[in-house]
Amino acid sequence: MTDAAEQGYFTEENSAEAVISRNSGAEDPRLKEVMEVIVRHLHAAVKEIEPTQEEWMKAIMFLTGTGQMCSEWRQEYILLSDITGVSMLVDAINNRKPTGATESTVLGPFHIEDAPERALGDDICLDQKGEPMLVRGRILDIAGNPIPGAKIDVWQANDEGFYDVQQKGLQPDFNLRGVFRANEAGEYWFRGVKPRFYPIPDDGPVGKLLGALGRHPFRPAHLHYIIEASGFETLVTHVFDPDDPYIHSDAVFGVKESLMARFEPVDDPARIKEAGFDGPFFEVRQDFVLAAQ
Amino acid sequence: MTDAAEQGYFTEENSAEAVISRNSGAEDPRLKEVMEVIVRHLHAAVKEIEPTQEEWMKAIMFLTGTGQMCSEWRQEYILLSDITGVSMLVDAINNRKPTGATESTVLGPFHIEDAPERALGDDICLDQKGEPMLVRGRILDIAGNPIPGAKIDVWQANDEGFYDVQQKGLQPDFNLRGVFRANEAGEYWFRGVKPRFYPIPDDGPVGKLLGALGRHPFRPAHLHYIIEASGFETLVTHVFDPDDPYIHSDAVFGVKESLMARFEPVDDPARIKEAGFDGPFFEVRQDFVLAAQ
Repeated sequence: MTDAAEQGYFTEENSAEAVISRNSGAEDPRLKEVMEVIVRHLHAAVKEIEPTQEEWMKAIMFLTGTGQMCSEWRQEYILLSDITGVSMLVDAINNRKPTGATESTVLGPFHIEDAPERALGDDICLDQKGEPMLVRGRILDIAGNPIPGAKIDVWQANDEGFYDVQQKGLQPDFNLRGVFRANEAGEYWFRGVKPRFYPIPDDGPVGKLLGALGRHPFRPAHLHYIIEASGFETLVTHVFDPDDPYIHSDAVFGVKESLMARFEPVDDPARIKEAGFDGPFFEVRQDFVLAAQ
Repeated sequence: MTDAAEQGYFTEENSAEAVISRNSGAEDPRLKEVMEVIVRHLHAAVKEIEPTQEEWMKAIMFLTGTGQMCSEWRQEYILLSDITGVSMLVDAINNRKPTGATESTVLGPFHIEDAPERALGDDICLDQKGEPMLVRGRILDIAGNPIPGAKIDVWQANDEGFYDVQQKGLQPDFNLRGVFRANEAGEYWFRGVKPRFYPIPDDGPVGKLLGALGRHPFRPAHLHYIIEASGFETLVTHVFDPDDPYIHSDAVFGVKESLMARFEPVDDPARIKEAGFDGPFFEVRQDFVLAAQ
């Protein structure tokens, strides 16, 4: 350590320590701890990168532009967190599941709190657009016992890749959303439409960064679920279509191998009739295993 | 490595690698390198902090608010860079000087390009407010030889802690600024007013963070210099008053021990007359040593 560092002045060598010791008066011990980790990694990153003054200014302008893109309807910093894998990492840290329990993935921005309760078998597609799909499965505990009455909140994009809230007036309200309750055998089933891949909003600084990184903005087709039952941890997850062109390159890193379900095409007339459709449909079977609280 | 990681899916364990390998198609090799360092440190920091979802959202909202505070007149992200020591670190990395050369410090936001050229000895204080000050010294090379004709661009806050550009209409234009040329002996001298400590703008998210960290927003009193001469590296630096109450706690970490100059009170009538003042004044002597290019 140099003389200057010993006397508490900032030097290139002791830069992180100089800042961390200045923050030692933080009242909230958690803030102090968080800032210590952030300052340490921030300074280490700057020392590895050795940015020019021009590169530093470019970073300042990127962060500024990302904030200024945010509005009531757009959260560009969450997109930045998503495409850098931070959102999925925070999800993973907060949802470590015991072996055998279904894995979680990100909530995403399109969930709404007040989706209507529906009866098992109802069609959540209110505008008859898209390829019909029947989804079925069971809600189980880790021992394989059914969880009767489990609450299943599902939502999905339509066959053009848009959620109802993105197309107000174009789609019926609450299109492709519903809250179901598992029956006594822990079973659930509902009808919807085969989902389609879609881009995250890419007309802002984050989309520009994705482009510069040689990356596309697409998320592979998926269904969203929140599953709740008394005595169990709430599960926030997706079901993915393994045949989607973007299944190995989800822009937000949400795909987990255990969350893929086959979207099986069905054209057997008896099964079509039993499912309540007029023609061929896709059938998706996916069970969910909840971890006890 | 788990099976999922081997197949390229994102897991808590391989999170940084999953993101870095996705960015491998970046066209610009520098962007790829910079993003790799950022992603590695970002994920390492998240793993150490283990933020809750609520803390993650708080961070998102802080970054958003910092961007939204920025305007044509306010750069809150530069302030964030300043109070975390990043600006000084980038300055240090870009201005490693040979032994004996004067050290650099941050430029700050108040420099203007077109300050007027003045004659040696001119008073840059245009409104006669504050305690008179005479500043003098020499511009030298590392061997101690004078650098005749060196360009010395100086600017300072007034005795209330404001720069002219912060008080348009209240201070004369170009108050407390001037460009001087060293004489044949490498000497410079000019008159001004004793500067005062002042706060960085602290009514935004960065000021709130400073408060939560138990820190004040003040910079100790200083004079700004940019010194240029043909064949030498341009020097951007300050001269600090070592008796300032904030000399050991500059909010932006700009103080270096080598940049302190004594502000000596002078009341000897002969020296007062020689300096061209009406009464007691402060004399500051500071030489600057430029590194060869």
